[in-house]
Amino acid sequence: MTKSLKLAIIGGGSSYTPELIEGVLKRLDHLPVTEMHFVDIEAGQHKLDIVAALARRMVEKVGANIEINASLDRRAAIQNADFVMTQFRVGGLQARANDEQIPLKYDVIGQETTGPGGFAKALRTIPVILDICQDIEALAPDAWMLNFTNPAGVVTEAIQKYSRVKTIGLCNVPVSMQMMIAEMMSCPPDQLSLECIGLNHLVWAHRAWIGGQDVTAEVLKKVGDGQNFSMNNIFEEPWDPDFLNALGAIPCPYHRYYYQVDAMLAEEKASALEGGTRAQQVMETEAELFELYSDENLAEKPKQLESRGGAYYSDASLNLVDAIYNDRKTIHVVNVPNNGTISSLDDDAVIECSAVVGSWGVRPLAVGHLSPAITGLIHQVKAYEQLTIEAAVEGSYDKALMALASNPLVPDITRAKAILDDILRTNDDYLPYFSR
Amino acid sequence: MTKSLKLAIIGGGSSYTPELIEGVLKRLDHLPVTEMHFVDIEAGQHKLDIVAALARRMVEKVGANIEINASLDRRAAIQNADFVMTQFRVGGLQARANDEQIPLKYDVIGQETTGPGGFAKALRTIPVILDICQDIEALAPDAWMLNFTNPAGVVTEAIQKYSRVKTIGLCNVPVSMQMMIAEMMSCPPDQLSLECIGLNHLVWAHRAWIGGQDVTAEVLKKVGDGQNFSMNNIFEEPWDPDFLNALGAIPCPYHRYYYQVDAMLAEEKASALEGGTRAQQVMETEAELFELYSDENLAEKPKQLESRGGAYYSDASLNLVDAIYNDRKTIHVVNVPNNGTISSLDDDAVIECSAVVGSWGVRPLAVGHLSPAITGLIHQVKAYEQLTIEAAVEGSYDKALMALASNPLVPDITRAKAILDDILRTNDDYLPYFSR
Amino acid sequence: MTKSLKLAIIGGGSSYTPELIEGVLKRLDHLPVTEMHFVDIEAGQHKLDIVAALARRMVEKVGANIEINASLDRRAAIQNADFVMTQFRVGGLQARANDEQIPLKYDVIGQETTGPGGFAKALRTIPVILDICQDIEALAPDAWMLNFTNPAGVVTEAIQKYSRVKTIGLCNVPVSMQMMIAEMMSCPPDQLSLECIGLNHLVWAHRAWIGGQDVTAEVLKKVGDGQNFSMNNIFEEPWDPDFLNALGAIPCPYHRYYYQVDAMLAEEKASALEGGTRAQQVMETEAELFELYSDENLAEKPKQLESRGGAYYSDASLNLVDAIYNDRKTIHVVNVPNNGTISSLDDDAVIECSAVVGSWGVRPLAVGHLSPAITGLIHQVKAYEQLTIEAAVEGSYDKALMALASNPLVPDITRAKAILDDILRTNDDYLPYFSR
Amino acid sequence: MTKSLKLAIIGGGSSYTPELIEGVLKRLDHLPVTEMHFVDIEAGQHKLDIVAALARRMVEKVGANIEINASLDRRAAIQNADFVMTQFRVGGLQARANDEQIPLKYDVIGQETTGPGGFAKALRTIPVILDICQDIEALAPDAWMLNFTNPAGVVTEAIQKYSRVKTIGLCNVPVSMQMMIAEMMSCPPDQLSLECIGLNHLVWAHRAWIGGQDVTAEVLKKVGDGQNFSMNNIFEEPWDPDFLNALGAIPCPYHRYYYQVDAMLAEEKASALEGGTRAQQVMETEAELFELYSDENLAEKPKQLESRGGAYYSDASLNLVDAIYNDRKTIHVVNVPNNGTISSLDDDAVIECSAVVGSWGVRPLAVGHLSPAITGLIHQVKAYEQLTIEAAVEGSYDKALMALASNPLVPDITRAKAILDDILRTNDDYLPYFSR
Repeated sequence: MTKSLKLAIIGGGSSYTPELIEGVLKRLDHLPVTEMHFVDIEAGQHKLDIVAALARRMVEKVGANIEINASLDRRAAIQNADFVMTQFRVGGLQARANDEQIPLKYDVIGQETTGPGGFAKALRTIPVILDICQDIEALAPDAWMLNFTNPAGVVTEAIQKYSRVKTIGLCNVPVSMQMMIAEMMSCPPDQLSLECIGLNHLVWAHRAWIGGQDVTAEVLKKVGDGQNFSMNNIFEEPWDPDFLNALGAIPCPYHRYYYQVDAMLAEEKASALEGGTRAQQVMETEAELFELYSDENLAEKPKQLESRGGAYYSDASLNLVDAIYNDRKTIHVVNVPNNGTISSLDDDAVIECSAVVGSWGVRPLAVGHLSPAITGLIHQVKAYEQLTIEAAVEGSYDKALMALASNPLVPDITRAKAILDDILRTNDDYLPYFSR
Repeated sequence: MTKSLKLAIIGGGSSYTPELIEGVLKRLDHLPVTEMHFVDIEAGQHKLDIVAALARRMVEKVGANIEINASLDRRAAIQNADFVMTQFRVGGLQARANDEQIPLKYDVIGQETTGPGGFAKALRTIPVILDICQDIEALAPDAWMLNFTNPAGVVTEAIQKYSRVKTIGLCNVPVSMQMMIAEMMSCPPDQLSLECIGLNHLVWAHRAWIGGQDVTAEVLKKVGDGQNFSMNNIFEEPWDPDFLNALGAIPCPYHRYYYQVDAMLAEEKASALEGGTRAQQVMETEAELFELYSDENLAEKPKQLESRGGAYYSDASLNLVDAIYNDRKTIHVVNVPNNGTISSLDDDAVIECSAVVGSWGVRPLAVGHLSPAITGLIHQVKAYEQLTIEAAVEGSYDKALMALASNPLVPDITRAKAILDDILRTNDDYLPYFSR
Repeated sequence: MTKSLKLAIIGGGSSYTPELIEGVLKRLDHLPVTEMHFVDIEAGQHKLDIVAALARRMVEKVGANIEINASLDRRAAIQNADFVMTQFRVGGLQARANDEQIPLKYDVIGQETTGPGGFAKALRTIPVILDICQDIEALAPDAWMLNFTNPAGVVTEAIQKYSRVKTIGLCNVPVSMQMMIAEMMSCPPDQLSLECIGLNHLVWAHRAWIGGQDVTAEVLKKVGDGQNFSMNNIFEEPWDPDFLNALGAIPCPYHRYYYQVDAMLAEEKASALEGGTRAQQVMETEAELFELYSDENLAEKPKQLESRGGAYYSDASLNLVDAIYNDRKTIHVVNVPNNGTISSLDDDAVIECSAVVGSWGVRPLAVGHLSPAITGLIHQVKAYEQLTIEAAVEGSYDKALMALASNPLVPDITRAKAILDDILRTNDDYLPYFSR
Repeated sequence: MTKSLKLAIIGGGSSYTPELIEGVLKRLDHLPVTEMHFVDIEAGQHKLDIVAALARRMVEKVGANIEINASLDRRAAIQNADFVMTQFRVGGLQARANDEQIPLKYDVIGQETTGPGGFAKALRTIPVILDICQDIEALAPDAWMLNFTNPAGVVTEAIQKYSRVKTIGLCNVPVSMQMMIAEMMSCPPDQLSLECIGLNHLVWAHRAWIGGQDVTAEVLKKVGDGQNFSMNNIFEEPWDPDFLNALGAIPCPYHRYYYQVDAMLAEEKASALEGGTRAQQVMETEAELFELYSDENLAEKPKQLESRGGAYYSDASLNLVDAIYNDRKTIHVVNVPNNGTISSLDDDAVIECSAVVGSWGVRPLAVGHLSPAITGLIHQVKAYEQLTIEAAVEGSYDKALMALASNPLVPDITRAKAILDDILRTNDDYLPYFSR
């Protein structure tokens, strides 16, 4: 690898970006970053300018030698990049608000990454990301693309199947689980080993170990007893201890949408009546954040960013950069092709799992036997995901309908069809290739 | 094979039995049946007597030379039998009524073979059938067991995994589909070829052929246009043409419980308010039938039996006997171990599929690529089925909870647990090995 | 299907053709053949003329209404054909003689379809057959191609992977096994059921059944006791009874090349010294046959053809035509994609197996568990086959070397390389796309 | 884990043991070994005493606090051990001499771990090691068993399938490859990453990486150019550069027995004529070593041990102890159940592969697509291995015959049977459970 690193950040005007900059600055002794190029679309120019200015102030404050570029020129950003990071949102927060609201009209979970909301996001995102991948193939064919764009598993599988870009999908959920479980077990995070397996936002810590002891049952007991095990942006519906015991694996916070449908739907509906959807709350937070970022005296990541829900986001991605660049061969939880890890699943299906990361890339760890309770749900959701990818790439109404009808959060095909038609209508601008 | 055939019918006092007797009498030129032994439990003595007397009158009328035995002695019935047929119902129609009513209390589909109802039936049935299998292993080890006992797929898989009995699971749904589709295509049933694949009561006619032409799309169009495609005992909610077109495979009538949950649940609730559950209606029909059977002048199957919902039941099982005994190597749709037919599924998972049947047994036909929309649902339901079998065999509350939580008709674990507790309470008498 | 059938026979000038014509004439009541178009290359014009004239006399003799065409115009032959049959030999019998002689120089089995000889034949044949397939795709896209061209399994897999033609690979070995085993068991052939599985010329009758009884052990005992179990064109080295008993499955005659290498190689070397290779013997037989065919008084298949070694060749292919055209759904042993039949093998690997054939095509029968002794060899030979196909299609020396090195009949890579170089030199005219 | 470690060494009287002791003494800062118990059989008492005395002198010299026990009491050695290491040889070097000589009589490779020699060793070893495992299950159920006993892959699979002992199979070949390749690439060993995959003594470095660059082709070029790439105990037949290039993966030294049969067999025969087999040479070396070990002034591992052929043996096993005890999560090449790593192979087939080792055990790394040239040979050899295990456990002549007939080094069943009968006769004393 080169001795200097260029990072390209697609969707650089995101409110999360200061966290990424802070992460880079903390790691300069082992990550020789010399250029960061933030790129965004025209509608994001203003935010991009604010973020770039803050970045320059942050770099200057610590006296680092990093060139900060910000532009609407995606190809310039990608050219010769060592790592391309994606964190954009097609349609912005308004599209997210729609994704959350539409399903609720039909008494179905409205969530930005799972269920019909995640489906709509995937339809909007896949064509754009495949377009970006063509630029990477042409301009930085050896670059690693670290994809944070949600639904991260679906998007990563689309990239793996329809481009030659080296990509790894990433999510902050597994890191958060590591931190929360370590805290409840009163153990340093690096002494807790989680064997994670599943799909993005449907990942189980199949087994938890401390010092060679399997502590899974103990962790489940604590979670069942009500210890904190949620993330900022997910309603913390308590877990039933009997269910956790029967499951025998630690669910991720997002599993509530699959297992505790009634309570989660009720909460979403109540909360939509009160304060609007999660997207609407985020819009307010964002406005406040950009207000802060604009302060010319600010030269560091403001504390308030943490309430935004993206904890460990920067750490997850920069630790991956570190593992690749410095050939660490450390274990990370990532989204990569299955390749036999879950033996009944196709080799090219993207899963989220514990994997060793080094300069040669990512190698999932074998996981052995899984309960049918886990593999059954994985197969069902993967079927939804693969149909969604095909629908997005082919612009096929039929595939889209079967995708939604296969999603376990959509209990009925009549509702599936009504929701699909509503999504297609509402997202008309972003689905030009989509035809009925 | 022997030149004379003994059939043992477990649950011989069933109201369906006259149809079976009629079927045997029709086939005497190629099936040399010389003994039929009907066996039942003490509570069924009265019905058994009525059925046996009718059987004797029917045999006498056609001048056949068949010994009719009826007893409570299961071992005597099984001893040296060539074929053992099972059609019993643990707990009788009252248990079925419970199976249908309990889920409705929790706004969940109440059906005797799918969802929580079928789950309860499996828990009651599996220990009994494995007990019968021990008798067969000891007293008629070469006998073929034809299992009609529902949920037929689950029960057949339990037998395959926990006994050495040669068994084939059987259902009248695929035969009915063959008949209904042939009728709507105005083609003789034997000129229509359906490639059936899936699980019991979750089987698709993956492709339909007439004269070497793939007519699947045409059939789907007719079904979508409202042609009759339901069975006597399932509410005929119309199918959405767009959905059928997107699915690209012909669903079975029971698929309505998975795809059209809202309408089916609404109908069940309405109908429960009006006329009681399906079980209650059946109890009335049965009473009427046995009234008829008792008529000493009756020496044939009464027409009224057909309204009972078991069309083609006798044909399905006796055609199988014929295929085995006479080495026909004809194609039947049966429940047998997968053995690679659906390549992502375990070899020992029982599936329902088109298979060749001869004197050497059953060989499924390879089916090739299936859409994720089909395999996803199969994996999810098979996970439920396998957990159910383990729960029944081990008497495990945890496995039972995970089974119900994995069933796609049970949308939420809180309801899953409430339903499970209700089922265990209500079926206490039939689940002696079950412990919490 | 149409009410009249056109057959196109590629390599129509073969000495086997009269058998095919006889087969057609025997089946006219259920196969309405109205046209047979024999096509060959320029070098075969003379033989083609002789065969066509004989065909016309045979047709006339029975008063059939079949148009006999013979030409060098492949496209005319294929145009609108219902079935295309291939039986050509690239390079003719001289190429076969080379295939048999080259390996012997290196102390390796020299055989026209297995080992290095079959490899050379595959390299010559695959480009030609894929070219033919392009014509079929364009001119008769609904036609079935019945491929007899050896190595039939390799060639069929190449067609399946690199064209869209509907094809079935066919061989007379399984039919011959059926006949020989029936004879030794003194049972009518149609009452013997063989479950065949493996690869072409590496096929086992995994189990043999008569009247529902597994008679595999009995058959093995008879074969071990020296009963005739060979084919005209394979040296009848006796089988060791202990080995057969340990194997527990009935090997095909060609298995001798894999299991009895020493004896087969010794015989080949002795026989090459005496009477020349098998190809040289066949050339003499052929010359005699064409002498006979030229007789203007001959209007039927001459008896002498039977000594040519292609017994049942015509029956095997015309029974397949019958099964497809008349939707017989009968069981045949054919070469088709695996699709889960051998569960550890890729779905698109072509295997030779018992399968049901009807108007919708071919569906292999599930076979269940196989001994590692069988699957190990299948995997090894399939690896050789797949590398051979890739070598032929890509013209890759590396793939060709790995193919030969992976063939179990080639015990050493130094010899593999020497043989490969010899084959490439000798077959230079037929391997234009092949580069080093 | 405990704060003090007990090691049990089965076959403690081996001439290798001083290397192990040295390895322990080097690692005392992070491996708190407080007891080593060497155990051997009665015939080995003399050697055991010599080794134990040397061990005590070595421990004393560095002032370590380690209790050295030596006894014939296997149960005492195993009781409460943390790690059990096996390095015994049933039948001693005389049995090895037989293993090497018998096959040569039939013109077949005679080698102690592959081919018929390894087969004979497996038959002798498996019953003994399963007996040891019963002791471990009873007396040290949490202990890790590190199995060096050859054939290590076969023996490890037998343990995995027929006991509940936690075991890892180990070999010094992959470590040696790492060292040799690093040397030829002039790179520190820890900067070279090999992705190893295959079976024991049939392992390929599928890909080699330095600093994120795939250097496989470069390594192959150097090996083809004649750079040292062999081990002390294997004849260094040069590799053909064209073959290596076509293979595209780095073979292990033992691959010469499969790929370069002619040269290896010729060398073995020549060498047997001259200096006796390898076993006979080793006997001499051993006698010299024990002479040295007996010297009461010796208190360290003598340099001469290195010529014995077991380079890195101690490092390989103690690095594994370290990785487990200290939860290093480092990558080692070990023999463990496949679990999807090679997707066409059974989950419970033991493979040799790169894997992460931590306090929770071993997790293989996914390896992705492999060439058929690799998987074909793996399947063939695994078939041999699995039949060998079944033969050993069941004492089955039939399975033994099929095992040998399936071994690619045995080209013919007549020879397979002759060799088998010779092996059974010669090893009569060690195969009490074996019956014909």
